[in-house]
Amino acid sequence: MKEHPLFKIANPSSIAILGASNNFMSMGTSVLSSIQALNFKGPIYPVHPKEKTVLGLAAYPSVEELPEVPDLAVIVLPTRIVVEAMDACGKKGIRHAIVVSGGFGESGENGVSMQKQLKETAQSHGIRFLGPNCIGAVNPHHNFNATFLTYGQKPGFIGMASQSGSFITQMFDYLALFGLGFSTGFSVGNEADTDIVDCMEYLAQCPNTKVIGLYIESIRRGDRFIESARRIAPHTPIVAYYAGGTEAGRRAGFSHTGSLAGPDRVYDGVFRQGGIIRAYSIEELYDFCWCLGTCPAPSGNRVLVQTHSGGPGAVAADACDRAGLLLPPLSDETRGRLADYLPHTASMNNPVDLTFTRDPRDYTDVIPRLLVEDANTDAILMYMLQPPSSVRRAVVAMGVKGEQVEEEVTAYMEGRSLEMAEFIKGCEKPFIGFSYATGENSFIRGLYDAGVPVLPSPNRAARALWALVEYVRLRKKIA
Amino acid sequence: MKEHPLFKIANPSSIAILGASNNFMSMGTSVLSSIQALNFKGPIYPVHPKEKTVLGLAAYPSVEELPEVPDLAVIVLPTRIVVEAMDACGKKGIRHAIVVSGGFGESGENGVSMQKQLKETAQSHGIRFLGPNCIGAVNPHHNFNATFLTYGQKPGFIGMASQSGSFITQMFDYLALFGLGFSTGFSVGNEADTDIVDCMEYLAQCPNTKVIGLYIESIRRGDRFIESARRIAPHTPIVAYYAGGTEAGRRAGFSHTGSLAGPDRVYDGVFRQGGIIRAYSIEELYDFCWCLGTCPAPSGNRVLVQTHSGGPGAVAADACDRAGLLLPPLSDETRGRLADYLPHTASMNNPVDLTFTRDPRDYTDVIPRLLVEDANTDAILMYMLQPPSSVRRAVVAMGVKGEQVEEEVTAYMEGRSLEMAEFIKGCEKPFIGFSYATGENSFIRGLYDAGVPVLPSPNRAARALWALVEYVRLRKKIA
Repeated sequence: MKEHPLFKIANPSSIAILGASNNFMSMGTSVLSSIQALNFKGPIYPVHPKEKTVLGLAAYPSVEELPEVPDLAVIVLPTRIVVEAMDACGKKGIRHAIVVSGGFGESGENGVSMQKQLKETAQSHGIRFLGPNCIGAVNPHHNFNATFLTYGQKPGFIGMASQSGSFITQMFDYLALFGLGFSTGFSVGNEADTDIVDCMEYLAQCPNTKVIGLYIESIRRGDRFIESARRIAPHTPIVAYYAGGTEAGRRAGFSHTGSLAGPDRVYDGVFRQGGIIRAYSIEELYDFCWCLGTCPAPSGNRVLVQTHSGGPGAVAADACDRAGLLLPPLSDETRGRLADYLPHTASMNNPVDLTFTRDPRDYTDVIPRLLVEDANTDAILMYMLQPPSSVRRAVVAMGVKGEQVEEEVTAYMEGRSLEMAEFIKGCEKPFIGFSYATGENSFIRGLYDAGVPVLPSPNRAARALWALVEYVRLRKKIA
Repeated sequence: MKEHPLFKIANPSSIAILGASNNFMSMGTSVLSSIQALNFKGPIYPVHPKEKTVLGLAAYPSVEELPEVPDLAVIVLPTRIVVEAMDACGKKGIRHAIVVSGGFGESGENGVSMQKQLKETAQSHGIRFLGPNCIGAVNPHHNFNATFLTYGQKPGFIGMASQSGSFITQMFDYLALFGLGFSTGFSVGNEADTDIVDCMEYLAQCPNTKVIGLYIESIRRGDRFIESARRIAPHTPIVAYYAGGTEAGRRAGFSHTGSLAGPDRVYDGVFRQGGIIRAYSIEELYDFCWCLGTCPAPSGNRVLVQTHSGGPGAVAADACDRAGLLLPPLSDETRGRLADYLPHTASMNNPVDLTFTRDPRDYTDVIPRLLVEDANTDAILMYMLQPPSSVRRAVVAMGVKGEQVEEEVTAYMEGRSLEMAEFIKGCEKPFIGFSYATGENSFIRGLYDAGVPVLPSPNRAARALWALVEYVRLRKKIA
């Protein structure tokens, strides 16, 4: 891994930043702020023609005058001086760069010609680089975030390579909603030197990456992409969203990165051959990554749905059917074991609809334990509902008063959550929650934080479970 | 409207509650708590054989002994004594009821027979009722919430009739995420007396209802449903989710409410004839309601996408195409007017991708104003992004310190939000936002609170805009 051209780009020991200043409006300043905010452990050298210090760091008037040869140069300069800066980096001995600056291949003839010069200059010095026209890279496991937005959550297990920087930076907060984060994220920009295939190959070797996500507008090296993906997919699942399959998507991609996309069915074929799971929205991309990174592989496509609400159960059944999953009947053994716990209003079909349970704890404790052992099922989808208002009423009725009420409510919800999470994480079958509640609910938040996938709707849960089944199928096919 | 059998069920002046006690574990107690929590304005009479007071209210040993004839009886008693209770209500002169109790038509032969008795008993007294096996009704405009969960947000404009109680109560918190709420919501349960058609007809007359949502597992009165919907749809849009279209969904629905669903294509036909827009998930159902209840009707299906992030723009374009929307080129006039505001990295295609703007305010101020006036477009989809970390950096760089920083950040974000909302609400074309950020972001929260739809992804925004276009098409077809 350390030999890979992207290693130093994602794991630099020292960084030069070209384009940061004390003007908070500049993009370069934002990038430097982000690097500082994630508490980067090595030296950071701002290069600035005039300023003596930049954001509190000693600044250097030129690359040449840097006190050492940094591992990485991050270039956020005006387009017209980027080539020159790359040359200065090369002369200093720098061998890795991220070029954030835009105005190259995506901006007409002149830009195309400058991009060519940029690449030639880098090659003449043996420099490998990401970009131009990208928003950088993030590796929270290394306290490294060279993008213009702050990375505020814990490091994660999703390795992302994206032909749109937005699907790196603008996902920081989105992923945090679910307690998720990146292992490493690359915004590849115009791919003048390294491309999405390189990123995928690097991420496959990264020990923090459990699953690889790709946002694709077009693939420049189709054969190598398929070949690499086939080698990677058997050990690390790959999920891709492709935006160029429609006419409008194709045109938008062209404006964005200057590359031409192909029809949907061509990419369907590419993904199939590569053993890659295709997602149809960005939410799906991350939903799939979430489940692929946390769930064991299912033995088949048979699923039991546990619910205490008929509607969410019926919607889950409907969604499972549309996603190509089967809902088998419960085994006789499970029916026998369940009988003691069910009220007369319950249904022992699939979905298992408890309506309510005599002891509310049964729903999160004994019942899922029985269901997951059913011989007819390969996976469980469970409706997660724990409204704080109901717990609050119980707490108040038990005589708790004042400020203690909220404390008790939270303690109860978090306690249930921890128990549930511990059980789910020990399951040998995929166990996926679904809920219309979000992380604002402390029961759901507890599950997220413990690494249990609770998808925001039965439809999304069914599709994510399908992705697990599909992954197993693709993996077998490749082998 | 006041003559409608559901009027007193949704707007009672006084309520008797049968089945509430001081045992916080009982469902009846939860229902009474909810009624109290929403600050119901009329008298509430708990009926309890032994308790003198229930949740602080004077209780009565029998219906007969109530001091007046209440408008509505809410019955949450054990199944075996429900018929008897209904009879007692009739004898007292009560003419409206909600029967929450389950164990009737959905629970085998004995239940079916008891449901028949229940209906006959009610009819013999001229009582109209909702249920059994429902979770009640909510009308926040009347401070009335006879369900077992607390209604905590403001009254809204979505009138909902649901064959699953969950899609009423469990949506309280879900809708609150987006600043939405119900005008009135009915859980119809087994529909022994009033059914989803009655609810739809009532909601069409309700002045607080701008759009009707339906959750359907099966329709018992198909002809009347179509006929009513055709009358209602031209003035109040109707959106339906149907769970019974797949085999698994059909079986789940049967377990849930004991009614038999029909194949997908039959319901497609029913919806088409009724002028009803079909949603394919519960999220979509409420997304469609949100936009139909807040946006003007579009003149056609041409949409301009405004973004400053290439990826979300490309995904929006792809999603619009898949949803059957067109992305026309900008008119020459708009191109001319825009030119002054765009950096050289921007794209004047559609999506209009600004990449950035020299003055950040242009993105939310002058540019959307120019785009919405474009002669080639019927609607705008706009990517909404305002990361607090960027604003915070600017605020800190301007010298603001300490606690004031967060105040300034919030004030700025809310200010932009209000300006934006004011403009959007004045538009004569649909103007729909999309963002991966949620209401935790104060810019997005401000838009929600002002009644501007900001959908959680470009895909959902495109589908919701499609629903507006489809509504206009269906309305024309009916006329």
